[in-house]
Amino acid sequence: MPHAPTPPTAPHAPTAPTAKGRATRARIVEGAAEVLREQGVALTTLDDIRGRTGTSKSQLFHYFPDGKDELLLAVAQFEADRVLEDQQPHLGRLDSWESWQRWRDVVVERYERQGDHCPLGSLFLQVGRSRPGARAIVTELVRQWQQQLAHGMRALQAKGLVSPALDVDRTAAALLAGIQGGVAIMMSTGDSAHLRAALDTGIEHLRATADGPVRT
Amino acid sequence: MPHAPTPPTAPHAPTAPTAKGRATRARIVEGAAEVLREQGVALTTLDDIRGRTGTSKSQLFHYFPDGKDELLLAVAQFEADRVLEDQQPHLGRLDSWESWQRWRDVVVERYERQGDHCPLGSLFLQVGRSRPGARAIVTELVRQWQQQLAHGMRALQAKGLVSPALDVDRTAAALLAGIQGGVAIMMSTGDSAHLRAALDTGIEHLRATADGPVRT
Repeated sequence: MPHAPTPPTAPHAPTAPTAKGRATRARIVEGAAEVLREQGVALTTLDDIRGRTGTSKSQLFHYFPDGKDELLLAVAQFEADRVLEDQQPHLGRLDSWESWQRWRDVVVERYERQGDHCPLGSLFLQVGRSRPGARAIVTELVRQWQQQLAHGMRALQAKGLVSPALDVDRTAAALLAGIQGGVAIMMSTGDSAHLRAALDTGIEHLRATADGPVRT
Repeated sequence: MPHAPTPPTAPHAPTAPTAKGRATRARIVEGAAEVLREQGVALTTLDDIRGRTGTSKSQLFHYFPDGKDELLLAVAQFEADRVLEDQQPHLGRLDSWESWQRWRDVVVERYERQGDHCPLGSLFLQVGRSRPGARAIVTELVRQWQQQLAHGMRALQAKGLVSPALDVDRTAAALLAGIQGGVAIMMSTGDSAHLRAALDTGIEHLRATADGPVRT
């Protein structure tokens, strides 16, 4: 078996993180996320995070040389991943009406439990929603979430449960907008009725396409 | 013609504001809203607002005895009213597909023009979204907006353009959630595609109900 070619190495290329380094960084981010959820972003210091994660100042600097904002963005990425993980395995297999209903229940339950505290929202308030790092995290979260919803709608189409004429990408975008708005209204009013309405109306819209032609 | 009975007056009831007093207060609120939109909430002082509106300290205290937060809540109410006004006359007469389409265009245009600056959102950040005063303003805005959407859906039902079986209140709640979420996503990503998708899918859903039975 031939040897794999040795990749060229730039003389001063940064050292690739080792598995151990990646694990330590992940542990710090996870611990920081815990403290931030408990105390809120405004009241949490780097010392609180060092205390919780058993990390020295130089270790923290090694993993987050740009300081607190870099760490907060890493936590925001962690929380964004969690938004999707919390919806699994349902979000990843939306291929029957039963699975859509289960997913709907998980989403309502997750956000009702979260109440008026949105970890991701608080982090973006702190680091600035329009900073490129923050914007990239939201854009990617929206893209992945919408893609999984669209994937589920295509699975329903493949089974003949939804009209083949449905504009899947637009319908997935609309459903995601409804979820976001439902959560935002719930955080302001304390009532999840809009979130439920967005999910139920969105699923009903999908079901209705099977009955007749979709006008566009 | 009999005289109207004189209403009983409590000995120390606060003086009802005169028409002139109401006009002065409205002028201060409108001027404050202008300054806050230009400079942002965080950078605006009461002196900036006094300067713009030609108001003395004692006048400001007379109309807003509880200080800056009371003034900011009054501006939030003014901005909330404006959200609905900006959608008129279309939002108030959604009785044909043409009027729904015109309203949809006005909403997209309004929020695209607004970009990533939401006056109401910034005010609530400053005074605290969960404060009773702030919560009451959002709850009332949501209620009125949704009521006008539902009124429009009922007008379509009355003309036989939409199925009488449609759950109007839930559908109006879902559409409003989609608008809110579409605006929120646009403010984070700079792209109005989700707002457009929510509006277009919502209207398409209404149109589709005329073609067949609505399953619930």
